[in-house]
Amino acid sequence: MLRDKNNKTYKNRFFIFYMVKYVFGHKNPDTDTVISAILYSNFLNSRGIESKAITLGKINNETKFILEEFEIDTPEIIETLPEKTEVVLVDHNEKKQTISNIDELKINSIIDHHKFSISTSEPLFIRAEPLGSTCSIITKIFEEQNYDISKIEASLLISAIISDTLYFRSPTTTNEDKEIVQRLNEIAEIEDLETYSLEMFNAKSNLGEVSAEEMIKIDYKEFDFNGNKYGIGVMETTNSNFALNKKSEIIKTLKDIKDKDNLNGTIFCIIDILKEENITLIPSEIEANIIKTVFEAKEIEPNMYSLGKIVSRKKQIVPKLETYFNS
Amino acid sequence: MLRDKNNKTYKNRFFIFYMVKYVFGHKNPDTDTVISAILYSNFLNSRGIESKAITLGKINNETKFILEEFEIDTPEIIETLPEKTEVVLVDHNEKKQTISNIDELKINSIIDHHKFSISTSEPLFIRAEPLGSTCSIITKIFEEQNYDISKIEASLLISAIISDTLYFRSPTTTNEDKEIVQRLNEIAEIEDLETYSLEMFNAKSNLGEVSAEEMIKIDYKEFDFNGNKYGIGVMETTNSNFALNKKSEIIKTLKDIKDKDNLNGTIFCIIDILKEENITLIPSEIEANIIKTVFEAKEIEPNMYSLGKIVSRKKQIVPKLETYFNS
Repeated sequence: MLRDKNNKTYKNRFFIFYMVKYVFGHKNPDTDTVISAILYSNFLNSRGIESKAITLGKINNETKFILEEFEIDTPEIIETLPEKTEVVLVDHNEKKQTISNIDELKINSIIDHHKFSISTSEPLFIRAEPLGSTCSIITKIFEEQNYDISKIEASLLISAIISDTLYFRSPTTTNEDKEIVQRLNEIAEIEDLETYSLEMFNAKSNLGEVSAEEMIKIDYKEFDFNGNKYGIGVMETTNSNFALNKKSEIIKTLKDIKDKDNLNGTIFCIIDILKEENITLIPSEIEANIIKTVFEAKEIEPNMYSLGKIVSRKKQIVPKLETYFNS
Repeated sequence: MLRDKNNKTYKNRFFIFYMVKYVFGHKNPDTDTVISAILYSNFLNSRGIESKAITLGKINNETKFILEEFEIDTPEIIETLPEKTEVVLVDHNEKKQTISNIDELKINSIIDHHKFSISTSEPLFIRAEPLGSTCSIITKIFEEQNYDISKIEASLLISAIISDTLYFRSPTTTNEDKEIVQRLNEIAEIEDLETYSLEMFNAKSNLGEVSAEEMIKIDYKEFDFNGNKYGIGVMETTNSNFALNKKSEIIKTLKDIKDKDNLNGTIFCIIDILKEENITLIPSEIEANIIKTVFEAKEIEPNMYSLGKIVSRKKQIVPKLETYFNS
C-alpha cells in the first residue's frame, strides 16, 4: 500500500483530508487573502478545530515581504481538494474566484467583505461586513471570542488592513478599519506605520522579471455582469512606469486572454497608490466605449485611458459596471 | 400639501422612509421570523440606528398567542417599500421569500439560518449560522455586543427558539440552541418550558375557520430546484385531524395553486409535532413519483403519503430535493 513521508497510508491520508478544514482566500492571492487564511486557521486550531491554511496560487511580492519580515511559513499552494473536504472561504465567496472543484466540497464557513453571489444547498456560517479588509472582520471575531492576539498576529493583521485599504487611501476604508489598526498596534507596537506601509508598497512594486501576462494576473478577477464576462486586473504600485514600459505587450496580452478565456472584455488598471491615480489599458474599442460611458475615462493615447482617482475595483469599478450591464 | 397624523408632510414622510431601516422576515411569517424582526429592531434602536420591524403578511395563531402573552404590539403589515429604503432581512435571504420590490431597495444586512442564494451588487453585513432558529443567532449577537436583554425579550427569544425547533424535536436543533435557551431562561424565568411549549403548539394548532388555501399558505415557501419550481407548505400541529378532515379540498387546492403560480409541483406536509410524524398531501402522480424516490414515501391512499419522521423542511426536505434535481 502506498505510504507518504510520514509513513501513513494514503487511505489514512485521505481520511485526514476529510477531517481537517482547509482555509483559503481567492485565486491570485493578495495580502489580505493570505493573512486571513493563516490567522483564521490559527484561531480554529486554538479552538480545537483542526484546520490548515492554503493558497490557490503564488503569493505576491508584498505578501512575501510581510511573511519574511515576521518569519511566517508560506502556505502550501493547492489547486483541488478531495471530494467532501470541508472548506472555509475567506476574503471571497464567488464561484469564479474560488478553488476549481468547489462543487465537490462542503463549504463550512465564509468570512468576506465583498459583494455576495452564492447559492448553497445547506445552511452555513457566514460573517460579512462592508469593511476595508477581511482582516478587520477577523480582528472583530478574535475580540468577540476573547482570542489572545499575539504580537506577530497583530502585526500581520495590521499589514493586511494597510494593504487592502492602501493605507486608508482607498474609498473602501471605514473609520472602523482605522480604529481596529489603532487597537491592534497597542499589541504590535509598530513605531511608524507610514514608513512601514511604504516598505510594503515598495516590495509590492518591485516585481523583478515578470511577463506581461504575469503582471496582469497578479491581482486579477473574472466577473459575470448579467451574462457579460469581464476579466479585470489591477496593479497597485508606487512605480507605474514599471507597467507602462511594457504597455504594448500588456495590450496585446489583454487581447489574448480575452480570446483564450472566452470573455466579453478585459481591463487592466495601473493604480499609483501614492498619487492615487488610475491609468487603464484595454485591448479594443468595446472596452473603450464602456469605460468612457461608465467612468468618464479620458483617452491618453489609443488603448490607454485615465480613470482619475478611481483606485478600488471592489467599491468603484465593479458596482458601476454591474449597474451599467443591468440597465 | 398632504399631511399625516403627526402633521408631517408626505414629503417629509418619504424622507423618513429613507432614513429608517426596515427589519422584516419572510413571507407567510412564522414566530421566529416575527420575533427576530421585533428584537433586532429593538437592538438597532438601542444603538442609535433608527429602525422599524414590519411583517410581510398576517401573523399565525402561535405568534399571536406569544405577542398577547407578553403584551407586544403586532408589527404593521407592509407589502412594498419606497425605492432605496434600507432593509434588514432576518430569517430569510432568497428573493422568492422576501418583499416583492426588493430589487428597488438596498439590503443593509442579513441575519439568517437557512441555506443561501443571493446576489448583491455591493458588500453588506451578513451573519449566518446553521443553528435551529434565527433568534439563537440574535441572542449571540446581543451577548457579544453586551446588549442588556430584558425579561420580556428573553421570553420572546425562548418562544421563537422553541417554535422553530419544535421544542428541540426538529433535527435542525443544535446543542447551542439548548444552551442558549438555558442562558435566556436565567433572565426569563419561565418555570415549566415543556408546558409553555405545549400552550404555544396548541395555539398554533387552533386555527378556527380557515379555508384549505389559508391552511396551505400558513407556512409556505416557493423553491427553485435547478429550474424546477416547487411550492412547499408545512403545517406543524398537535392535531393532524384538523387538516386531514379537509383532505380532498386541500388536494384540489394544491392543484389550483400549481396551475395559478405556474409551478412544477406542490407539496403539503402535515407534521404532528408531538408524535413526530409526517403525512404529506400532493396533487398528482408527478409529485408522488418524486417523494417515493426521494423520501421513500409510503402511500396511505391516493394523493396521501406517510413520510415517516421527516419533520424539517429546511434540513430534511429541501436539501434532498435539491440533490435530486441537481443529479
